[in-house]
Amino acid sequence: MIEITLAGNPLDRAHHKRLDAGWLAAARKSALARIAVFSEGKPLIRDGAVAFLTSPALQMLGCAEEPGVFLGLENEDAYFAIELGRSAAEAAQELGGFADFRGTLASLPMTESAILGEARGLLNWHAHHQFCAKCGNPSLIADGGWKRICPACKAEHFPRTDPVVIMLAARGERALLGRQAMFPPGMFSTLAGFMEPGESIEEAVAREVLEEAAIEVGAVRYVASQPWPFPSSLMIGCIAEARSETITVDRTELEDARWFTRDEIVRALGRPMGEGPLSLPPPFAIAHQLIKAWLAEDGAAR
Amino acid sequence: MIEITLAGNPLDRAHHKRLDAGWLAAARKSALARIAVFSEGKPLIRDGAVAFLTSPALQMLGCAEEPGVFLGLENEDAYFAIELGRSAAEAAQELGGFADFRGTLASLPMTESAILGEARGLLNWHAHHQFCAKCGNPSLIADGGWKRICPACKAEHFPRTDPVVIMLAARGERALLGRQAMFPPGMFSTLAGFMEPGESIEEAVAREVLEEAAIEVGAVRYVASQPWPFPSSLMIGCIAEARSETITVDRTELEDARWFTRDEIVRALGRPMGEGPLSLPPPFAIAHQLIKAWLAEDGAAR
Repeated sequence: MIEITLAGNPLDRAHHKRLDAGWLAAARKSALARIAVFSEGKPLIRDGAVAFLTSPALQMLGCAEEPGVFLGLENEDAYFAIELGRSAAEAAQELGGFADFRGTLASLPMTESAILGEARGLLNWHAHHQFCAKCGNPSLIADGGWKRICPACKAEHFPRTDPVVIMLAARGERALLGRQAMFPPGMFSTLAGFMEPGESIEEAVAREVLEEAAIEVGAVRYVASQPWPFPSSLMIGCIAEARSETITVDRTELEDARWFTRDEIVRALGRPMGEGPLSLPPPFAIAHQLIKAWLAEDGAAR
Repeated sequence: MIEITLAGNPLDRAHHKRLDAGWLAAARKSALARIAVFSEGKPLIRDGAVAFLTSPALQMLGCAEEPGVFLGLENEDAYFAIELGRSAAEAAQELGGFADFRGTLASLPMTESAILGEARGLLNWHAHHQFCAKCGNPSLIADGGWKRICPACKAEHFPRTDPVVIMLAARGERALLGRQAMFPPGMFSTLAGFMEPGESIEEAVAREVLEEAAIEVGAVRYVASQPWPFPSSLMIGCIAEARSETITVDRTELEDARWFTRDEIVRALGRPMGEGPLSLPPPFAIAHQLIKAWLAEDGAAR
């Protein structure tokens, strides 16, 4: 059973509300609003859960006028998110701690991770798109954070999501894994790369495996996808049938790439990370889920 | 058998060459270069095929200095694409005609459509991203067209590809199709919509069908994907199991949405477009291929 961290968002995104500036302002000021706050991309956490603030609490931090972005509804509760300025962030330290978001993924409740993922993806976009890419003038936030409009050239801009293919290439009892130089010692993972204009998912999978390891790929099967807001990816997870065996590592992308047997992988999954010769990504990474999906299929097929 | 127009690009994108400015300049000036030229996004076509130009031909049109974008290699031939200025475009009329790209998809050889799709997606991006979204200063083309760099703030920008979910929601013998007001009379298609930060493919499918038609969706199966450079989409095609029947049309998105029986759809596919009560999208649209995939599965299951 595949479980995708950062998916499973319980909110109703309530698109029609985004266009209703009056409703948004009232909902945002309501004492029932649930507002996720970030400092430099780090969410405020208290006792292992997201410390959602209300509007009066935000006011006490001195950022009452910041509209933030609208995330959606859970029953009658409206969720928002805000990136705090420095002084408000300092004041907020009394209410919890700002934690590295990626570091919280293993421990936060799954629904809260998903809500924060939506928030973080949207806030990242605003942080890096304050100007109109078409004419260079400052653009303005609109539609509860789901659009930016250029007052100069009237261009409309929408949140960017970058599709990334991530794939386990397998051949019989062996799977291809690679490691980047920045990985902890002994850690290997599935290969991955950004999709480009003019290619299908299947073509991107084949291109990436060929580029990074010089392995040819045949059939490609989609398994699952994961929103990954670091800063704005959609991870599209596939299992690919490898059609060749001799690896040539692209050293500009990877430090190493190797075939691992099913047994080596099963043993690595059964061990705590960092022990033994091979470590694999943690369960919150889709790479882990792809590896598990391959093991399950492979076992069932025998 | 599903055939995806705009996929099936025969070029080797040759990433390492993108970084080699000397090689790119020489390849671009070679008399063997194959250069696709566009005017206002329309490709130059001659005798039902892409009129690839060589560098000397471009020089005669008066645009020798425009570097264009590097598309890839086919054997030793390097492919490029250029958006022509007005005077060069006028001069190029002697060599062929500029055609609406979408209009050529039904008739161009599939591999040529795919090469033009890559070109058009990349050229669209440059046309709308001349300025740095982070600081507002003009950015510069780099890496054979696969990157833009801001000389002011040093930000790097990469081509944008927007994932779109497009899905046939089906319940037993009936499938859900909708029509936009701009469609020709009688034409219906699958529903579709842009993915947003913080959602998986499956979640986006369920959200779009619920938003546009108020139909609840269960299992979602990925079928195929299609690069769609109008201007920068990746169409992710799925078949979704509908779990409810009563349609409520979102009139801001659609003019109508209805259940059609398998027989109605089979009859519509067998008729020329525009005849009879129902028309469906043409084979070059992934919507058509999704409908065919559903018919094939459905038939096999009985």
